[in-house]
Amino acid sequence: MGTNEIPAGVLDTERFIADQVNDIRAQVGDGIAVNALSGGVDSSAVTLLGHRALGDRLKTYFIDNGIMREGEPQWVVSIFRALGVHVELVDARDEFLNALAGVTDPEEKREAVTQTFYRDVFARLVRESGARYLLQGTILTDIDETVAGIKRQHNVFAQLGIDPEEAFGYRILEPLVRLRKDGVRKVAAALGLPEEAWNRPPFPGPALAARVIGEATRERVDLIRRATAVVEAELAPVATGAFQFLAILHEDRVTGMQDGQRQFGQQIEIRCWDSVDAREATPTELPWPVLRRVADRLTSEVPGVVSVTYNLATKPPSTIEAV
Amino acid sequence: MGTNEIPAGVLDTERFIADQVNDIRAQVGDGIAVNALSGGVDSSAVTLLGHRALGDRLKTYFIDNGIMREGEPQWVVSIFRALGVHVELVDARDEFLNALAGVTDPEEKREAVTQTFYRDVFARLVRESGARYLLQGTILTDIDETVAGIKRQHNVFAQLGIDPEEAFGYRILEPLVRLRKDGVRKVAAALGLPEEAWNRPPFPGPALAARVIGEATRERVDLIRRATAVVEAELAPVATGAFQFLAILHEDRVTGMQDGQRQFGQQIEIRCWDSVDAREATPTELPWPVLRRVADRLTSEVPGVVSVTYNLATKPPSTIEAV
Repeated sequence: MGTNEIPAGVLDTERFIADQVNDIRAQVGDGIAVNALSGGVDSSAVTLLGHRALGDRLKTYFIDNGIMREGEPQWVVSIFRALGVHVELVDARDEFLNALAGVTDPEEKREAVTQTFYRDVFARLVRESGARYLLQGTILTDIDETVAGIKRQHNVFAQLGIDPEEAFGYRILEPLVRLRKDGVRKVAAALGLPEEAWNRPPFPGPALAARVIGEATRERVDLIRRATAVVEAELAPVATGAFQFLAILHEDRVTGMQDGQRQFGQQIEIRCWDSVDAREATPTELPWPVLRRVADRLTSEVPGVVSVTYNLATKPPSTIEAV
Repeated sequence: MGTNEIPAGVLDTERFIADQVNDIRAQVGDGIAVNALSGGVDSSAVTLLGHRALGDRLKTYFIDNGIMREGEPQWVVSIFRALGVHVELVDARDEFLNALAGVTDPEEKREAVTQTFYRDVFARLVRESGARYLLQGTILTDIDETVAGIKRQHNVFAQLGIDPEEAFGYRILEPLVRLRKDGVRKVAAALGLPEEAWNRPPFPGPALAARVIGEATRERVDLIRRATAVVEAELAPVATGAFQFLAILHEDRVTGMQDGQRQFGQQIEIRCWDSVDAREATPTELPWPVLRRVADRLTSEVPGVVSVTYNLATKPPSTIEAV
């Protein structure tokens, strides 16, 4: 499969889908393939392409890593159930949270999540499935960024020091590797994925673990999960033009008051970004009453939160995520 | 001296000043008195009362503790020089910064600053002066809050376990003890203190050490001093109705970019409060261009700062200061 870019502007989605379905069928033959669905647009498009090509001979796993948004696993499974695709929900929460225990360095957190996913949980599922083919949602931007050294892409195996064919006995198929994100969205829409699923704000690979400064314990992940639900519910209706919005749980404790007594509490930072392509970004000018309301909801609805802030810095020198 | 309140509304400043001057003269006789000037309105009023009563027999010390605003010691000394009052500037920066080394707990920081001030530096100055009288700027609110257990007032000696007469051989005079802050401001103005000196935003006892989450090292105090100068310069013209505004250096490091590379940097939080009496407070709705400009100045002018946030939470459950 070549890696010549197919720009979204010239993409013929029906023909692209037909070509990829044929290619997957040709490669897999009457064998079994597996893939991991994250709920992001890339893995969603791959799931639908693979299902169209192989039907039930594609086994799709959704791995609940315990660091997802509130209700995320059930939501993703239900979206695909409505499209006639069975997704197996795998509860691996303990495995991931154990791997994250005691880890505070952001890069080590990413590494713990990535390694637990590929080396432990997904590798076990692939072995048990007996599949010889793995479908992956790698896109052209992943290749570019990996080559440029900007980002470690969790779906680029070479970076992990893994030759999957040698290590696990399977081959990797990457049907989206000639597209960028805008092209993938068009393909996903053409495959019937509802807009609410393909037009979601980006979410980091290490999920809510990346939204916690310091150790991502079960309690701290639960806290940022609740805060994320509040921030997304309040900002989604007003930040319609924003590139992304997120909540971050700080490690610093700040002084607060409860029942007239001083006590140290948690701080949540809200970021909302205007950006075209994430390379540069400016904070969104949100209406003051919205900012104040989300702060009031966070301090009253999320136990332990006494302080809420809003990001004012641009990228650069800041970055979209804090970790 | 009684502690019956004299409300600001019925305060006859000329008569109050005459009474206090007479009282100080009667008590000190032809002896020597000392006082410590912080630049706050309380100690400024006491300095001017004491000077009017005793002239050069009042020795006034300004102790540079190394955790003050940019140019603060020189500014205070020059204000009083213009009023004909000599203030002795004492460089105790090393002593305070050594006492703060390794201290991260907010209460222990306050304690380190208080103890270094009273037990070490000021006690030494008092001994060397041979004074038998100490003038203090205690006001009625200090007494109330100490009795109520809300706050440790650094100028209420009993809390420190110190009986000054027994320990140091001097008596304490508290000429402002029947006034509250508004009354003190009237007295200070009547004594000739310029408005820029008596109408300043409140500044915490532990000064910039309270504006640093975690250890207040020399480098971190220098950083928050520069950030404070930027925030005060930008907000003073627009936040004219605000009760207080401040900058806080977080201990958490957040991801930033420099020259295209990821690097961890510092975060500055800005707080600006609307409040009548500091018991309850809401964040000030500042113009968005002002917030964005102060953030840009902080990230470009203060080395190491990659992120800037603005507080959105009310007090309670937050507090005015973060530490």
